[in-house]
Amino acid sequence: MYYERENIKKMLGYVSGEQPEGSNTIKLNTNENPYPPAPDIQNVITNFSSESLRRYPPARADKFRDLAASLHGVERSNIIATRGGDELLRLLITTFVNPGEAIGMTSPTYSLYPVLAQIQDCPSVMIPLNDDWSLPGTFTQQINRANCKLTFLVNPHAPSGKLFDTETLSTIASELNSVLLIDEAYVDFVDVNYDSIPLVCDNDNVIILRTLSKGYSLAGLRFGYGIGAEPLIKPMLDKTRDSYNLDLIGQQIAEAAISNRNYAMENCQKVANERNKLSESLLELGLASEASQTNFLLVTIPAEFVCTAKQLYEELKVRGILIRYFAEEKLANKVRISIGLPQQNKTLVDAVKSLQL
Amino acid sequence: MYYERENIKKMLGYVSGEQPEGSNTIKLNTNENPYPPAPDIQNVITNFSSESLRRYPPARADKFRDLAASLHGVERSNIIATRGGDELLRLLITTFVNPGEAIGMTSPTYSLYPVLAQIQDCPSVMIPLNDDWSLPGTFTQQINRANCKLTFLVNPHAPSGKLFDTETLSTIASELNSVLLIDEAYVDFVDVNYDSIPLVCDNDNVIILRTLSKGYSLAGLRFGYGIGAEPLIKPMLDKTRDSYNLDLIGQQIAEAAISNRNYAMENCQKVANERNKLSESLLELGLASEASQTNFLLVTIPAEFVCTAKQLYEELKVRGILIRYFAEEKLANKVRISIGLPQQNKTLVDAVKSLQL
Repeated sequence: MYYERENIKKMLGYVSGEQPEGSNTIKLNTNENPYPPAPDIQNVITNFSSESLRRYPPARADKFRDLAASLHGVERSNIIATRGGDELLRLLITTFVNPGEAIGMTSPTYSLYPVLAQIQDCPSVMIPLNDDWSLPGTFTQQINRANCKLTFLVNPHAPSGKLFDTETLSTIASELNSVLLIDEAYVDFVDVNYDSIPLVCDNDNVIILRTLSKGYSLAGLRFGYGIGAEPLIKPMLDKTRDSYNLDLIGQQIAEAAISNRNYAMENCQKVANERNKLSESLLELGLASEASQTNFLLVTIPAEFVCTAKQLYEELKVRGILIRYFAEEKLANKVRISIGLPQQNKTLVDAVKSLQL
Repeated sequence: MYYERENIKKMLGYVSGEQPEGSNTIKLNTNENPYPPAPDIQNVITNFSSESLRRYPPARADKFRDLAASLHGVERSNIIATRGGDELLRLLITTFVNPGEAIGMTSPTYSLYPVLAQIQDCPSVMIPLNDDWSLPGTFTQQINRANCKLTFLVNPHAPSGKLFDTETLSTIASELNSVLLIDEAYVDFVDVNYDSIPLVCDNDNVIILRTLSKGYSLAGLRFGYGIGAEPLIKPMLDKTRDSYNLDLIGQQIAEAAISNRNYAMENCQKVANERNKLSESLLELGLASEASQTNFLLVTIPAEFVCTAKQLYEELKVRGILIRYFAEEKLANKVRISIGLPQQNKTLVDAVKSLQL
């Protein structure tokens, strides 16, 4: 006998990137930041008294919310702190989408979105991107026609790395009949002019997702937040969120992280520079990548290359370098490479070169 | 314009106990453990390297799962680690109950259950307990007749403190047509013979919830786990759980906590002894409480007492002592008092005495 709901029974679940135990692997497969978090975070941890864990933590992480609000020039009521971006994505569905109602997204996109839709028994309306990864002109019309209640847009886009500009986002927000989530997981690596915060002030249907996992080098912490109009934030904060969703030590680390934003942003700038350098080095080897504003490159393996994308993934793995290969039609001739430390990126380039000999 | 689902729009959300900022209050309102967590936990924190937060944490907390499995004499596949018990409760609904399907529980019970049911748009079937807080003989028949897909039973019971014996639970488990969650949040304070683990081996529909919040003095950590047959655990582990639900430092603290179980259990025994003593002291003042196997007492304020239950809550609050009052019909003449340190309990008794002068 089984007790699962039918939609759960038939779904597969999200498959995250490989996480090898040892530290010898050069891990360029899950877009972790190669630089350490701000030194002040170590102080917070070292000075943390275990006795303070005896009590329940602040339920809404208000200190963190105030810091985030101040950073973005909004109010505390515009911020919800969540366990990584993942929790915010789930809460958006729980709060705004009835089972059976559609959720809009691009194709391809972050592969977690359709999994979260399946959990709520919602169809995913996947609008294919143009060949240059731009949004089709009829994007919002297609979403509205499908009566989507929520749309997930990751920007900069994953897995291409492409940045949609704020003008495009603004048009989408005003044309959509429903809630728009702009997932800015990778925004800290953007090195061109980009500021989407005015969108949440101008539109009652826009929520921006931020995470400390990438830009702040804290993937192991599970801390993110949402920025949006109060009527969008409040029901998640007061009703659908697990009542104490964030532990005490995590809240204090997150406060230190955002208070030391400059340290993190300097590292992000280094990553962006390395990204641009790696892109050139790979191009010299015949491997073009999409123009990326993230901490990864989506690299196309041309038919004339010495091996296929899948083989490249496998060959590099044998050499102790993990990159990401997606078994998806549009991505079959591509690999995604996270930006590592300069020496790691060099090792990668050398390994690719050695395959060509 | 609002975007909330109708069921979210009309619900109120869970209201947790007051959490004053300062430390001068004697806080006997949210069932926190008055003793500190095991000393080894401080070592784990002090020696934790912030750099390790750069990477994603182990997705399934397998080290913790192995320790919990070993403690309970089950397999790793019988354990899911969650963010407090709350996450497990939510995952059970998400995984096993379609919107519109009923969820069974007693009345009264832990007030979070009906809130979680509302979030999934599920009716709560609330079966009133007998006047002595025992289960009515027709409990499972009523649950089955209402076609409940999941039943929440907190044991020892909250807010009465009463323990249902394993024979009763075994009968319920075998008679129910659906999943039974036995919420053992307070089980570490039981000082009579009680072992429910065989129930998960004998029944494919039973999951036991454990938390580190109470017995292990780690309410601020948000860490719990479920024990059940693999077909119940696996869909929550592989499909409905947020993909990295537990941060790295939390996992290591939880591992240390469960490895130092003896330390925690000695403190729980102290709490149980204090509970029995406080119960007697209050009885001497004319305030009888239910026989409790938890770290709290449900105390009845008789009509002839100098004040009502609500007034007692308010009078004690003025004196810097927080207890819990529930504005619910069956609990209107009662207060719930968490067991504190011996000196705190004495201060409470003295304060009650002073009201009678």
